[in-house]
Amino acid sequence: MDLLKQKIVEEGSASGKEILKVDAFLNHQLDVRLFEAMGEEFARRFAGQGVNKLLTIETSGIAIAAVVAKYFDYCPVVFGKKNVSLNLDKEIYTSEVYSFTKQTTYQVMVSKKYLNAGDRVLIIDDFLANGKAVEALKDIVEQAGATLVGVGIAIEKGFQKGGKELRNAGVKLESLAIVQEMKEDGTIVFD
Amino acid sequence: MDLLKQKIVEEGSASGKEILKVDAFLNHQLDVRLFEAMGEEFARRFAGQGVNKLLTIETSGIAIAAVVAKYFDYCPVVFGKKNVSLNLDKEIYTSEVYSFTKQTTYQVMVSKKYLNAGDRVLIIDDFLANGKAVEALKDIVEQAGATLVGVGIAIEKGFQKGGKELRNAGVKLESLAIVQEMKEDGTIVFD
Repeated sequence: MDLLKQKIVEEGSASGKEILKVDAFLNHQLDVRLFEAMGEEFARRFAGQGVNKLLTIETSGIAIAAVVAKYFDYCPVVFGKKNVSLNLDKEIYTSEVYSFTKQTTYQVMVSKKYLNAGDRVLIIDDFLANGKAVEALKDIVEQAGATLVGVGIAIEKGFQKGGKELRNAGVKLESLAIVQEMKEDGTIVFD
Repeated sequence: MDLLKQKIVEEGSASGKEILKVDAFLNHQLDVRLFEAMGEEFARRFAGQGVNKLLTIETSGIAIAAVVAKYFDYCPVVFGKKNVSLNLDKEIYTSEVYSFTKQTTYQVMVSKKYLNAGDRVLIIDDFLANGKAVEALKDIVEQAGATLVGVGIAIEKGFQKGGKELRNAGVKLESLAIVQEMKEDGTIVFD
């Protein structure tokens, strides 16, 4: 998706060979026009698949999924929670995630009320790197007996293994920008 | 806002006299059509105020602010972060928040790049109870030398002190539903 790649080049920055900062438009300050364009593109790529629920995870996926929902006929968005809250239901699906960025393991939780066997789920997230968060959401979709239609990602780090593993597992994975390499001089190379 | 009150009555539930569960549409599963209606209403209530930035805080405010931005001419949304991340800038505004729900104190952080003296800021959040999160965002707006146009809240707990304190401080606070009381029998009384 050219608009997203252009944003990454113009407003993003590579910090070393692994960290891509896109907090100007994707995960701290948010460019909602861009998210709408991403929604149109996801709708095109997952057309006719009967998606009736978007599933994402705290934190940065939430804004994207909320804006994208409009392009899937305003289907409900559910986000996996990372923190226990007094307000969370007792009946929950849980799955474990290892975060390389934060170097900790955490549980992602989804109330059983909001994910059902009849659901056709599209997982949405801002980044795909090692794929641990998406794996956990996929696991929760399976626990619910729902159907995973696919995974829609804004930025995939193509040099990390998450994308390859999901594709090898037969998952329909659509990433709007795949970063193949971040060079020492700051150049970002797309797939 | 009648649509929101109706949703609270039909899909929310009071758990004791203090906890209002609205995870069916506001803070776990998200009803994006409702958020759009909320955006229209906020735009009406803050019309002509020159809002050019929405400021919110992890987690539940993010989805609302992202959808609401369209009604403020797609102005940027910035969300305060609660967790230190490798990707966060070194130059940040911080303010301390005490969470009664989680019974902990945490720092909210906003990169200095995304909040400037010229900004006219509308703070958006899902709930207002004791007002600690909004107070911290207001403090950050002041640190940046920006102008606080007002505060737009989905659900205010009118029986807690946050709303009164903000109004007494001269803040233009607009809450789309004000819950005055939650009775033992589960009845929810609005202002």
